[in-house]
Amino acid sequence: MISGKNYIGNQLSANGTKTYKTFNPELNAENSTVFTEATTKEIDDAVNLATKAFKEYRTVSGIKKAEFLNAIADEILALDDQLIKTYCLETGLPEARAKGERGRTIGQLQSFANLVAEGSWVEATIDTAQPNRAPMPKSDIRKMLIPLGPVVVFGASNFPLAFSTAGGDTAAALASGCPVIVKAHPMHTGTGTLVASAIIKAAEKTGMPNGVFSNLNASGIEVGQQLVAHPKVKAVAFTGSIKGGRALLDLASKRAEPIPVFAEMGSINPVIILPNALENRQADIAKTYAGSITLGTGQFCTNPGLLLGIKSDAFTSFIKNVSEEVLKISPSCMLHPNIKKGYNTSKEKVVSQDNVTITANYTLDVQNNYAAQAIATVTGKTFLENPTLHLEVFGPFSMIVQCDNAKELETVISSLEGQLTGTVISDEKEVANYPAVIAALQNRVGRIIFNGVPTGVEVCESMVHGGPYPASTDSRFTAVGIGSIKRWVRPFSYQDWPNNMLPNELKNENPSNIFRVVDGVRTKN
Amino acid sequence: MISGKNYIGNQLSANGTKTYKTFNPELNAENSTVFTEATTKEIDDAVNLATKAFKEYRTVSGIKKAEFLNAIADEILALDDQLIKTYCLETGLPEARAKGERGRTIGQLQSFANLVAEGSWVEATIDTAQPNRAPMPKSDIRKMLIPLGPVVVFGASNFPLAFSTAGGDTAAALASGCPVIVKAHPMHTGTGTLVASAIIKAAEKTGMPNGVFSNLNASGIEVGQQLVAHPKVKAVAFTGSIKGGRALLDLASKRAEPIPVFAEMGSINPVIILPNALENRQADIAKTYAGSITLGTGQFCTNPGLLLGIKSDAFTSFIKNVSEEVLKISPSCMLHPNIKKGYNTSKEKVVSQDNVTITANYTLDVQNNYAAQAIATVTGKTFLENPTLHLEVFGPFSMIVQCDNAKELETVISSLEGQLTGTVISDEKEVANYPAVIAALQNRVGRIIFNGVPTGVEVCESMVHGGPYPASTDSRFTAVGIGSIKRWVRPFSYQDWPNNMLPNELKNENPSNIFRVVDGVRTKN
Repeated sequence: MISGKNYIGNQLSANGTKTYKTFNPELNAENSTVFTEATTKEIDDAVNLATKAFKEYRTVSGIKKAEFLNAIADEILALDDQLIKTYCLETGLPEARAKGERGRTIGQLQSFANLVAEGSWVEATIDTAQPNRAPMPKSDIRKMLIPLGPVVVFGASNFPLAFSTAGGDTAAALASGCPVIVKAHPMHTGTGTLVASAIIKAAEKTGMPNGVFSNLNASGIEVGQQLVAHPKVKAVAFTGSIKGGRALLDLASKRAEPIPVFAEMGSINPVIILPNALENRQADIAKTYAGSITLGTGQFCTNPGLLLGIKSDAFTSFIKNVSEEVLKISPSCMLHPNIKKGYNTSKEKVVSQDNVTITANYTLDVQNNYAAQAIATVTGKTFLENPTLHLEVFGPFSMIVQCDNAKELETVISSLEGQLTGTVISDEKEVANYPAVIAALQNRVGRIIFNGVPTGVEVCESMVHGGPYPASTDSRFTAVGIGSIKRWVRPFSYQDWPNNMLPNELKNENPSNIFRVVDGVRTKN
Repeated sequence: MISGKNYIGNQLSANGTKTYKTFNPELNAENSTVFTEATTKEIDDAVNLATKAFKEYRTVSGIKKAEFLNAIADEILALDDQLIKTYCLETGLPEARAKGERGRTIGQLQSFANLVAEGSWVEATIDTAQPNRAPMPKSDIRKMLIPLGPVVVFGASNFPLAFSTAGGDTAAALASGCPVIVKAHPMHTGTGTLVASAIIKAAEKTGMPNGVFSNLNASGIEVGQQLVAHPKVKAVAFTGSIKGGRALLDLASKRAEPIPVFAEMGSINPVIILPNALENRQADIAKTYAGSITLGTGQFCTNPGLLLGIKSDAFTSFIKNVSEEVLKISPSCMLHPNIKKGYNTSKEKVVSQDNVTITANYTLDVQNNYAAQAIATVTGKTFLENPTLHLEVFGPFSMIVQCDNAKELETVISSLEGQLTGTVISDEKEVANYPAVIAALQNRVGRIIFNGVPTGVEVCESMVHGGPYPASTDSRFTAVGIGSIKRWVRPFSYQDWPNNMLPNELKNENPSNIFRVVDGVRTKN
């Protein structure tokens, strides 16, 4: 039974009068649970409780935080079928995807647990005193990373588990020592409530301070706006549209105390297909890309929405090929009628521009909320002249741009907004002949891929999920992988501080047994 | 002979009609050189040239960048007496300070040269492929830090060398691979032009691309505004007032593509003097703090503008002591008549508030542009009720707050805006009895100091110069020390990228011989 209430710390609360239900896009009908939106008072209570909890939580050891994170993973697994079923009812996504995403979520929690249990992530450095240095003695100075304070995490429509309630942003923030207040996504509030209950159970079992986590229901944008504007909130994580992310960034920038907003937003993920690859294996590429464009009904931030190449018979043939392949795929369900509506609207907007040729358009009847895939093509010149053609169409759609030559290809790439990924389909010998194209691509993206697809974001230390604006609001950080913890911390120095008063990470005797840089040398001594 | 012109890359240029001169505050008279402010066209040319230079400069090896940085240091030293004399003529600061600051500037350039010559700073990580992993094979993913693009650096009024033309911000940006456009400070444009000439010479001698550095003159705020708003500028460094830094942050936040502004702004650097210390050594503390308050005419961002303690006879006696000590010190010259005017205005504003008692006020005649030091005191209650008393008075002034008890002391600290530093004067046994006070202080500052003074910022790896807003606009970064390079870079991933096309830092054979994390293990292999 899902409560429909908010968690203000470990207390269920539903004082508001505004209620809503989630929607089953497969059945095209509302789900039964009634959710009560958080009131202004409940929002304020959650932030104040988080601020109070921060005083204690910031000093909790890495070992204890790891216990908490691992307990969250265990409690999520213990939700078992109820979680998987609720997920499917609220998203129209298949059970296999639900289980896969749960696995990823568990893996993320565990990898942050390992990171903070080991402890070296705080980047402790120690510069010892030189009392006899001339002309001035040198103080003892020690530095480590410390948490910022309460963080607000927005649930993402397209990742109900891995980038929502206990997803990557929450795991990273809790690992760093920051309390988290989640603004639940209205499309999957039931899934979020279940996961929130798991976090609360884990917090209680492992003795974390009340307020280390809260979960607030919201049907519209007001709850999120109030959270971002709250003076005691210190940072924000968001995954979603450019419009939504930018609005939050603007709000945070206007505060008396501006705070960092880490928004991972839109991306059309350009894929450059070079001539040799087209000559040698266009059938394979066409098949692979038809699959990548339609994977998860195209509802991934790394969906390849833009294919770029140089005009040739082979490219013409490839366009025909990929268009045929994409039409062979059975349409699938989108997350919500609004997402489906948005897909159709933005697709229509793009394909109705001048000089756009539609090469694939699924016209058979589709179920309610299922998306009809499409591919369209334009010349490089048309693409350069019309920024509307750069728009992200969130769903199974891709635009193919036919450039006159390598120079125009480079110009098209340079004209792109910032992107999460860029892909090059080529062979090793050929790609070396396109240094300007590759350099232009690198300057516009956060990750480049050779002969692969951008979908399928590996969670590992070397992953960068982020990129120049508007792929994300701050390209200096990644949203995926253990490096994402750095969004929630700041460096802090102790000068001549008494050893017994230092945090363990900086004490002379190194009781945490972590790697530190002491007078320039990395050591555990 | 100082040209009075702008450097657009290696070309001297003075197409504008707006001119200005710098001012000698000691003589209370204008200096002779006429400077021509950069025009909109010159600003645009400088940014476009930097953007072009970035294409090449971003690929320059660490060894070559180190040669460039070391050459800048050499060319600055070669300016010799001309530089020191110009510095003194434009600032009213003594020769010893000029030489000390030059030494620091040289040291900063050399430490960044060493950092990039060694090369491990790029944080290279490699996660090798697992082609047989089930259910999905794992790609080879490699990550390193890469530069953002052209950076604008604003010269700081109070550090004509160490935080201006070739100062810490410029050294860090050039080390990272970002071209730099300096907006010269109007108060010391002559010093800036000389240093710019040294940078240009060094760039030419070491074969750097034209446009890697430009220097633009400005008498007001327009040149800086145009630079920050320019679409091809990717980041900004500023040291100065809260008003100035916030205006730039707001401007950068409103851009179509928002960019990071790293502004190091105001701070009153609270100093907490605990009872035992007052009982045992108040005369020493009084003397030390009278010196710290007046050091460099109080024109340091780390000037101790706020002393906090708990009411007692000993504290009353300390206030008398420090007030007497501060009046024994001879007043000294401020940087500019406008700085002096600002000092008097803000000091008057603060001391004219209700319930403020002036305990020291230098009333003897002082030379033009010399600052009369002062100390005032209020109760904790008064301080909490009146935010005007929190204002930074840039100059030799300090406010002493007398709290009723430790609880009120904690409340006062918690009420403070973000600060660069916090200092505790105490002994090891005593300080352990004030955990809430220390925790509150840590939450408001970037560096805490035990039994020292906040002035005198050591340049080393463990130094944090930055803090919660408004000490700086982004507490996640330091402005001093080699860590400051991280402001100008972003992580970047290569997925399945051909080995011969990877940058040296990520190639299998590790030709740069740097430390990397390979499958979780830090190694040079």
